[in-house]
Order: sequence, then C-alpha cells, then structure tokens
Amino acid sequence: MIAVSGAEMVKMIVAYDGGDFHGFQRQREEPTVQSSLERALSEVNRAEVSIQGAGRTDAGVHARGQVVAFRPRVQIPLHRWPRAVNRLLPSGLVVRSAESVGQDFDPVRHARWKHYRYEISCGENPSPFERRYVCWLPTQLSVSKMQCAGHRLLGRHDFSSFQVSGRPVASPVRSLYQLAVHRQEGRIITDMVADGFLYKMARSIVGTLIYVGEGRIMPEEMRDILRERNRSRAGPTAPAQGLYMLRVQY
Amino acid sequence: MIAVSGAEMVKMIVAYDGGDFHGFQRQREEPTVQSSLERALSEVNRAEVSIQGAGRTDAGVHARGQVVAFRPRVQIPLHRWPRAVNRLLPSGLVVRSAESVGQDFDPVRHARWKHYRYEISCGENPSPFERRYVCWLPTQLSVSKMQCAGHRLLGRHDFSSFQVSGRPVASPVRSLYQLAVHRQEGRIITDMVADGFLYKMARSIVGTLIYVGEGRIMPEEMRDILRERNRSRAGPTAPAQGLYMLRVQY
Repeated sequence: MIAVSGAEMVKMIVAYDGGDFHGFQRQREEPTVQSSLERALSEVNRAEVSIQGAGRTDAGVHARGQVVAFRPRVQIPLHRWPRAVNRLLPSGLVVRSAESVGQDFDPVRHARWKHYRYEISCGENPSPFERRYVCWLPTQLSVSKMQCAGHRLLGRHDFSSFQVSGRPVASPVRSLYQLAVHRQEGRIITDMVADGFLYKMARSIVGTLIYVGEGRIMPEEMRDILRERNRSRAGPTAPAQGLYMLRVQY
Repeated sequence: MIAVSGAEMVKMIVAYDGGDFHGFQRQREEPTVQSSLERALSEVNRAEVSIQGAGRTDAGVHARGQVVAFRPRVQIPLHRWPRAVNRLLPSGLVVRSAESVGQDFDPVRHARWKHYRYEISCGENPSPFERRYVCWLPTQLSVSKMQCAGHRLLGRHDFSSFQVSGRPVASPVRSLYQLAVHRQEGRIITDMVADGFLYKMARSIVGTLIYVGEGRIMPEEMRDILRERNRSRAGPTAPAQGLYMLRVQY
C-alpha cells in the first residue's frame, strides 16, 4: 500500500458513456464528466477538488481511457481511490485505476500521443443495442479506399481542413502517427494516433473517410484537401456516438 | 414480390432495447413497444391497427426476436414492411423481418417454445457500455454449481416457486426443455427454453441460480424449492436489463 502525500497528484484513468453527459468540460447546469468527477472527489476529499482532463471530449463522445489528475486532500491508499470515487458516480462513468504522479503533472501538456477509435456499423437496420455506441450507415463502404485515403493523411500537416471552428489554437499543425482502417466483427474500425487533435478533428477525418468509402471523394484528393486548409473541402463531421478516446500516452 | 391480401396476417420479428420502454404492453401514458408499433403501423396502413405479441416483456427486458402479428389494411409487398415501419419507429425498436401467415395465426397460443437468454457480467467495476445490457455483479459465481442446479429444473413441473404474483394463469405447470449456463467473452450466459414462461419466471430462475453460484443455495435444494411451490423459498428476481427474448418457435 502506497499512501500519497498532499504534495503529489493522483492520475486516474476513467471510462464513460458519452451519451449520458454534455461533454467532458464543466458546465453550470448540465451534467458533464468533469462536474460529476469533481462532485464525487470533493465529497471523498471533504474539500473542493478540481480536476484536469487530458482532452475535452464533446457531448456523446465516449472514453475508455480518458486521463484526469487532481491534488488529493486526504490520505487514501492509491488502490482504494477507484472504489471510493465510483460509489459516488453515476452509472455511465467509472474510474478504472489510479496512480501517483509528480506535483507538476499536466495531463494536457505532458501527453505524448492520444489514441482515438471510431466504430461504424453498416447494414439495412440499425441494431437497437448498438445505436448508442456506433455510427450506423445504411450503405456499404469500401474499406480499401478508406485505407488508401487514410495513408495520405499520415505525417506532420496543417489540419485546418479537418478542424471545426470554436476553439482557437496557437497552431493547426499536428502529427498523425497512425491511421488504420479495418473490419472487425461486422464493424469498420478507424484507429487514429496523433500528438494532438484539433477541435472535432477525429470526427472530421472519419466523416471524410466515409465519403471516400462511399465513392464521393477519391483517395487521391486527400493531399489537396489538406493543402487547401478549408473545412468545407473535406467531408462532414461524423456523429459523436461512434467515437472513443482509447488511450493517452505520457 | 408477394403481396398480402387483407384476409391474411403479417407476422413480424422485432428487436428492442427494453430500457427505452415501459414494457411491451400498451399503456395510456408511457411509451411501450406495443403502442410504438401500433402508432407506426396505423400510419402506414392509414387505419387503426392493433397488434398481438408473443410475450408481454416487462419494462427493461430486451428482445432480439419478439414476434408480433397484425392484419394489414394496405397492399404492401412483404419485404417492404420492415423499412416502411422502421422509419416511423423510435431508435430503440426495429422490425427485422416480415412474413405472411394465415388469418387465424395467434402469436401466443401457437407458440411451441420460447427461448430467453440472461447475461451476467462479474467484475470489480461495471463497464459503462454494458450496464444497460447485462446484469453486473461485483462477486464471482460458480458456473458449475449453476449448471448443476439448472439441470434439476428441467422437465414438466409446477413452477409456482418461480412465479411472481400479478398475472393470474390457468395453470402454473410448464415444460422447461433447456437450461444451459456457460461462460462467453467474460459473461455468464443462461439460456432457457420452455413451452411458456410464468410471470417473471425467467428472472426468478436466474435470481435463484445467482444465489446458487454465490453458494447461498445448494444445487441439491432445487427439487425442494420446486416442490414447496412458495416464491419466497427461491432466490430474488434478477434485474430486467440482463434478460433477452431471443426467439419464439411456431
């Protein structure tokens, strides 16, 4: 049992069903991931606790490996944090694990890469059991065309064409390390790993890949779309419920 | 393309997320499976249409193969019924297929057997993505004890001990043809096939098997529990969200 002192931070990995929350970020009225976690942590710590998250996921976007950090006010053995917090959280949000990190830990700035996954299900009728957790399309997609288009986005680029305005950033340049599309158990999975994602970048990339899979955009056009730095040149923003924040690496 | 005449009935297989409905049966205020289907069918038929269902599932209970039948008022090729109805249904309810049956078809009386499945997930933290679709338990269960107890329920018996009062029936005798418990992808699956199920019988059987799996009831006690015809002798009624109506055979 390792106890943490007040000077250190606790880093937790959390999972949530995005359909239950109005996004990650704290809001005055609506339930969000941050406000639910802060309320539970404040109760356990018997003091006002605020958290920092690795990424501000939008309403409807899920997480299996979101990372949050906070400064504990009580001495609790690390392995007991998940259970202590989980009993106070709504059922759509769960703490998976906790570890101790240094007091200068910053879950945003210290992230080396983030892994997002997008799940698509194609077929005539959407399954009532999947609709909250995948993007359903009535049309079939060409996975090989999507793979081909995805390869053309790899590397360090200005991703302005895949950014939705709303959150100003210093630079729209990001490094996309991996973009893999494959079929798995009847679904089309798109894995994206980058040093960071612009606002709605993951969903804008997937929306564009869906257009490629449908034959509306040619894989060869991807470099032009990047070069033009114009959001309207790319495909639509894919729906939130297919997107998962899988992992953040430090 | 086979058109149906007004004299025949249409039998449809439907699936639904039970968490979205206040059970199958029509109610005045609350959304139910029956009222949602009847509203959509009445719109397509341009006339008041009522349906009969094979089983009145409770609030929270899911279906992958519920059977409903209705008398069509318009001539629509059979294969077009699912799409015509689905576009008018809420997202938690979907018509999977349609076929033509004789005008005397009765989905309750003509059912030869029904297949229900119950899904349990054991582990320290419930997954936010499973909580609507499985029964989560923090304890581990002995599947071999559950199998052993389940075998003792097979056959033709008075199942009063596994019936919740509320829906009077002529006879509490049913034939249980199959009761199989197995592990699959981290879950404990219980399959039950019978010529009919009393009110909350499937969930009462599973609640009792959970007590067996936890060691609170011995597998050898099952025959006594049946013989005593006393609901309080058996285990609790397992929660609705783990139960699926899988198939009805005619």
